[in-house]
Amino acid sequence: MPLLQAHRLKFCSACGAPCIYQIPPDDNRERATCTACGTIHYENPINVVGTLPVWGDGPDGQVLLCKRAIEPRYGLWTLPAGFLELGETAAEGAKRETDEEAGAQIELLPLYTLLNVVSVGQIHMFYRARLLSPEFNPGPETLEARLFHEHEVPWDEIAFRTVRQTLQNFFEDRRLGRPFALHGGDIVTVG
Amino acid sequence: MPLLQAHRLKFCSACGAPCIYQIPPDDNRERATCTACGTIHYENPINVVGTLPVWGDGPDGQVLLCKRAIEPRYGLWTLPAGFLELGETAAEGAKRETDEEAGAQIELLPLYTLLNVVSVGQIHMFYRARLLSPEFNPGPETLEARLFHEHEVPWDEIAFRTVRQTLQNFFEDRRLGRPFALHGGDIVTVG
Repeated sequence: MPLLQAHRLKFCSACGAPCIYQIPPDDNRERATCTACGTIHYENPINVVGTLPVWGDGPDGQVLLCKRAIEPRYGLWTLPAGFLELGETAAEGAKRETDEEAGAQIELLPLYTLLNVVSVGQIHMFYRARLLSPEFNPGPETLEARLFHEHEVPWDEIAFRTVRQTLQNFFEDRRLGRPFALHGGDIVTVG
Repeated sequence: MPLLQAHRLKFCSACGAPCIYQIPPDDNRERATCTACGTIHYENPINVVGTLPVWGDGPDGQVLLCKRAIEPRYGLWTLPAGFLELGETAAEGAKRETDEEAGAQIELLPLYTLLNVVSVGQIHMFYRARLLSPEFNPGPETLEARLFHEHEVPWDEIAFRTVRQTLQNFFEDRRLGRPFALHGGDIVTVG
């Protein structure tokens, strides 16, 4: 994916005239600026929200992963997650994605990871969640939803670096008996 | 500000033709869709990042507030904060805004509040920060940057609800001797 999707906006979404990238007065970055109506179009990172759903407590607790039925990363395993939508909170978005992708019933727990993926202009946020049932009903974006013990996790078939990071943080915190506090972090390359 | 800025995109930023709002196949929300090239334009919440800079430890520690020199909320007091930009992490953005708005030298501490402002499609994130100096050099967006003891905070002149919430959380945690863990929350109305 191209770095920062530079010079992505060719035309003005307000009037349809061509945009050029230039630094507006009192600004210090190039912005898509309409050559006709002068509208400045700002582009900002967006948020991906999801959950780390766990069935059972202690070291035998299993995590829910979903096998992707869509590109990118078709056939690889992910935590349920997707783009935060207008009209919802991050927690609501995380619950919605868990329902849409896994059909899983959860109790949402506190935010657990907040990971910057600067190369693609995204922030990924995962909430811990307690599964209320081991029964799932995956949606069309998911080939299969199933539970994994720690030793069963398919580490070579994880779809996204932020998912791997979140799983690693969880298993490490659990092994060490640490409280599940927020982990911040930056994903430096796409993977 | 209109709820969710509905039907905001009139023209396609890829080709300049008119857009209409319709639900794409395999989707469940209306998206701006180009009538010519078919591009679907997604709109998502954006992030505001800032800091809660504190000078000194314990109950006498003072917080840094900035008096706004720009609309909205000209003349009211805020924590240094602004829109997260492409190319930076949330922490980098928070540091940049602190420099731009207050000219303050800080050591960034962990993320402290993450507040959804659904009505305007924003998430506000504030990091705690330790001021390394009580000298400031406010930029053009700030009339004045100064330190406040808790009893001096101008509660009736705070620019944004998320700033008020963040300050309230901080003073309460400090008063009760609680660790400064992440506070999540939702701001239900604009204020």
